Amino acid sequence: MDELQLLSTITQPTDLHRLSEKELLQVAQELRQAILTRVSQTGGHFSSNLGTVELTVALYAAYSIPPDKVVWDTGHQAYPHKMLTGRLNQFDTLRKYQGLSGFLRREEHELDVFGAGHAGTAISAALGFAAARDQLQTNEKVVAVTGDAAICSGMSWEALNHAGEMGTDLSVVLNDNRMSIAPNVGALTNYFTRLRARPFTQKVARRAKDVVERLPSPAAKVAKGLRHGLTHYFAPNETGTVFEELGFEYIGPVDGHDLLTMLEIFRNVREIPGPTFVHAITVKGKGYEVAEEDSRKWHGVAPFDLESCEMPTSSSQPTYTQAFGEAAIECASEDDKVVAITAAMPDGTGLTRFSQVHPDRYFDVGIAEQHAVTFAAGLAAAGLKPFCAIYSTFLQRGFDQVLHDVAIQKLPVRFFMDRAGLVGDDGPTHHGAFDISYLSFIPNLVLLAPRDATELREMTRWMKNYDDGPTAMRYPRGATDARLPEQRSPIELGKAEILCSGDDLTLLAVGSMVSPAWEATLQLLESGVSVSLLNARFLKPFDFDSILSHFRRTRRLLIVEENVRAGGFGQQVLDALVRSGEPTTGVEILALPDQFVEHGAQPLIRRDCGLDAAGIGTAAARLLQMQRSTQS
Amino acid sequence: MDELQLLSTITQPTDLHRLSEKELLQVAQELRQAILTRVSQTGGHFSSNLGTVELTVALYAAYSIPPDKVVWDTGHQAYPHKMLTGRLNQFDTLRKYQGLSGFLRREEHELDVFGAGHAGTAISAALGFAAARDQLQTNEKVVAVTGDAAICSGMSWEALNHAGEMGTDLSVVLNDNRMSIAPNVGALTNYFTRLRARPFTQKVARRAKDVVERLPSPAAKVAKGLRHGLTHYFAPNETGTVFEELGFEYIGPVDGHDLLTMLEIFRNVREIPGPTFVHAITVKGKGYEVAEEDSRKWHGVAPFDLESCEMPTSSSQPTYTQAFGEAAIECASEDDKVVAITAAMPDGTGLTRFSQVHPDRYFDVGIAEQHAVTFAAGLAAAGLKPFCAIYSTFLQRGFDQVLHDVAIQKLPVRFFMDRAGLVGDDGPTHHGAFDISYLSFIPNLVLLAPRDATELREMTRWMKNYDDGPTAMRYPRGATDARLPEQRSPIELGKAEILCSGDDLTLLAVGSMVSPAWEATLQLLESGVSVSLLNARFLKPFDFDSILSHFRRTRRLLIVEENVRAGGFGQQVLDALVRSGEPTTGVEILALPDQFVEHGAQPLIRRDCGLDAAGIGTAAARLLQMQRSTQS
Repeated sequence: MDELQLLSTITQPTDLHRLSEKELLQVAQELRQAILTRVSQTGGHFSSNLGTVELTVALYAAYSIPPDKVVWDTGHQAYPHKMLTGRLNQFDTLRKYQGLSGFLRREEHELDVFGAGHAGTAISAALGFAAARDQLQTNEKVVAVTGDAAICSGMSWEALNHAGEMGTDLSVVLNDNRMSIAPNVGALTNYFTRLRARPFTQKVARRAKDVVERLPSPAAKVAKGLRHGLTHYFAPNETGTVFEELGFEYIGPVDGHDLLTMLEIFRNVREIPGPTFVHAITVKGKGYEVAEEDSRKWHGVAPFDLESCEMPTSSSQPTYTQAFGEAAIECASEDDKVVAITAAMPDGTGLTRFSQVHPDRYFDVGIAEQHAVTFAAGLAAAGLKPFCAIYSTFLQRGFDQVLHDVAIQKLPVRFFMDRAGLVGDDGPTHHGAFDISYLSFIPNLVLLAPRDATELREMTRWMKNYDDGPTAMRYPRGATDARLPEQRSPIELGKAEILCSGDDLTLLAVGSMVSPAWEATLQLLESGVSVSLLNARFLKPFDFDSILSHFRRTRRLLIVEENVRAGGFGQQVLDALVRSGEPTTGVEILALPDQFVEHGAQPLIRRDCGLDAAGIGTAAARLLQMQRSTQS
Repeated sequence: MDELQLLSTITQPTDLHRLSEKELLQVAQELRQAILTRVSQTGGHFSSNLGTVELTVALYAAYSIPPDKVVWDTGHQAYPHKMLTGRLNQFDTLRKYQGLSGFLRREEHELDVFGAGHAGTAISAALGFAAARDQLQTNEKVVAVTGDAAICSGMSWEALNHAGEMGTDLSVVLNDNRMSIAPNVGALTNYFTRLRARPFTQKVARRAKDVVERLPSPAAKVAKGLRHGLTHYFAPNETGTVFEELGFEYIGPVDGHDLLTMLEIFRNVREIPGPTFVHAITVKGKGYEVAEEDSRKWHGVAPFDLESCEMPTSSSQPTYTQAFGEAAIECASEDDKVVAITAAMPDGTGLTRFSQVHPDRYFDVGIAEQHAVTFAAGLAAAGLKPFCAIYSTFLQRGFDQVLHDVAIQKLPVRFFMDRAGLVGDDGPTHHGAFDISYLSFIPNLVLLAPRDATELREMTRWMKNYDDGPTAMRYPRGATDARLPEQRSPIELGKAEILCSGDDLTLLAVGSMVSPAWEATLQLLESGVSVSLLNARFLKPFDFDSILSHFRRTRRLLIVEENVRAGGFGQQVLDALVRSGEPTTGVEILALPDQFVEHGAQPLIRRDCGLDAAGIGTAAARLLQMQRSTQS
């Protein structure tokens, strides 16, 4: 497909050691070419990986990997890493079912030393590796590569604080591309902008190298005086930086696309003992013009045409995300107490247009879910109606805040959890597999799940008007389903929607599972089975009366939810049946398994979990069969 | 009991406005006296409240409260706040059953604008109040008072980052007492030490005041030039501080016990628009000599003798905390891969002696549970055996890290969750009421609960040797129970312990509930009921075979756990019974209710929840009765 003469000979990072500077430049060029051709065919994270090409080559050429260890934050910037570690030929399977993961994975490769899909974990993990090295008395180097958005997350700061104090040998490389997914926010970002205004260090790096080369012995390199001397070449500003205040030697800013300078810097930094901080400026989408210009659009892409730069248009059905974005604007236009909060995901959560229509009532707090939740709690305590839109998987970061700051105080924060259920290509770090379980046991909280975009809109309006405590709505990634019936009953606290009533079997479906349950219902009806189908709507408090009356009639109940079984909706219903003295033979729960579900297209992995119309049909048949044999 | 002539006339903060400087000094003196006499009788947080006396009086005299709002971080430094807001006379009920809370509580008082028991939430919440004020176009001032330990938590940094960027009117007061509970750690602490080395601002504060007074109009005060001019009086250092880099005007350090200087500073700060940061140095235990000298011992106290400075000695039975501390040392002495991590709670988790015996293998990361968990994940990935000791309620902060960084990667981090179940006096923000629920649904994780100190030690050793994935053990606050039988079977993955076998009823108890269940068993046996008592030991994976065989014989099963019902152990057992086709009539779960349990002595609040021998006996009798009537 393309000529990757040199790159195809690299199977491990140390292969780079035997290459000349000119050849390293060629490797970088081929890496960029490989990303362009591969990702345009498979889709995936795009612009961030074009931005880390030179940085990765320089880092891997300067360090000895293994035993040196590089921990990549989030990991969707690590395609060059994957290509330099023997996985170039597997890129046609990228993010595909049973193919290469889009993130680092310890199970995938021994040089994926630490996997991550959530941002801000790299410095903590790298410090763990460094402390273990000190304990085991080995001498490998440890590097954390993080981004300018990830470093604003609280846990990055906790880790910098600990690393600065511990003083052990650790390098933090800040890949500063001036935006993560959306334009970055926060005072630190402004601060980075001021740091960026300093002159690049190309020339001083040469001088630093001269200094090092003139040293009599390697031992002298570690002299404390020199460490400061060296870094002051790079950071000539008299004031010192925040990172220096925390105990790091700050080196920067450096041009992250100037491979040879980066190489020298990394070779020098590798010899500096203690905590060092390299601030590299990169450009997202580097080398693909349209992506450089609109890196937000080109952050994560579907397969696209490399020549025409055209991405395929998406489904004609509206997505849940779009529906939420519109509903939030409607609510805000009606009620000036409505404000919206996102944690660095205005596009992903559907709030981009909200930010344009109601800029004064829109808060992007950066990758800072903990703060997002408690900030929302403060807004609610002051009488506003905060809409806090955070993906199901990322709200895990704000779990304690939901419980401790919001729920204990019964504050009416409205949570909107997009990407609930299996998200598909991003895999186990991103599936919203747990939110029903981690929210159902929180006192005072109301939990909802809509069956489609229209219901999402109605539920959003209902949540806007509910001031008695916190509410949370979960909804899946993707387009809503048009097959469901359009007659609707109004949303009422704790009430389910009865889509059809029958005598043989009750299907009780949650949110995203209503649509496949409807499909299964149609098939069952066709084969002569008389089915009740209930759309749960409220998962807490739930409509036990309706469930009980249908169950008493049908004596068979199949509960379907796109969430793990433990602590999920099914178990809550089961428990309620037992409490009311109801026999539970004939109750079955269809849910996600007690394991982390791998990546792959949503329909495929849902099928594997039995969470599609066919799976529901099979479970229903089993239940009908089992019941018959029990009864006979 | 003591003469509080002036203090007893203060029922709201604005009452301070009519007092002279001399009278304010007297109020402070009386506040200190009141804390000494009240807390010595009731017990409670002690030294931190002695440290905030002058700061609180100065703040409340300078601001107009209400409508101005002060958000206190954590809240156990806010007894002066409570005494200045009309609750002086209720202090004999402090932290007692149905008495005054030891923390701020919105339900307790309208000026408790935001409650908190976990650290680091104040700046986020205060920024919420400030943003709401801007939205509602009112003009009250908002102040967050935080501590030098709390500000190191990630969410404080997330909030500072957002506040610095937003630029709205907000004051952050750092109550820097140089240690929180244990000596503080982290690079920031070192940084604060450097800031502290600057001269106090008493004199420059006078000059700043002169500047303000010479201004022609209040409007001029807000001129940007002046803002910087003003604060440069206070922070004359040329380099600027980290907080200035984030967009705050930094004022400090100031002597937090110099009431009149603080008063002037707060009066000035109140007029400075935008984000301001006041760094006040205080002494924990100020005014009570022994507490100044050992503020760690005097952080939270039982009732004590004010004259002799003697605290009562605790129970003769070892606590779970002590048992863990000893077991951890044993394990580390045997295996040099064992390392221990605490998040600022060396005393509370029992690791203090570990830190002395194995200082190289001990890490106190500060109030930074997120980092603690992922740091432990890094240590485990590098081949060590990390013991991560975090209270049940505080591990909620690291929930995403347990799931995303530890469990997905099957890293053998060992979690030790002290204070699982109802903790007593600290109340709803501190009860470990949820950990079974928030951990049971996490794939790959093994969850245990010991019945007493001896079993805790054996389980700790078992966890040390288990390398296949993460493990977590939960155990309660307090002394272990000596009543249980001493014959023991070895710990085996997924196996329960059968304490006795009978035919009428199976009691299945989790950890802290084994002891009262044993007591109930003895009473039941005495009254002729034949009882099986199972100590669950493993909550995930659990011993379904043993449970099933006992249930099949007795047909009555009472599951007892000190955790909320939803997502708890009982529901997991129930679900397993249903899956295996077992009828569930005759199964009952005794657990914490779906509400936040208030504070009070452990025996009282456990009794209220039915989680003592009497409650178990009652539930057992009901179950036996119900069954008989069903069977007849």
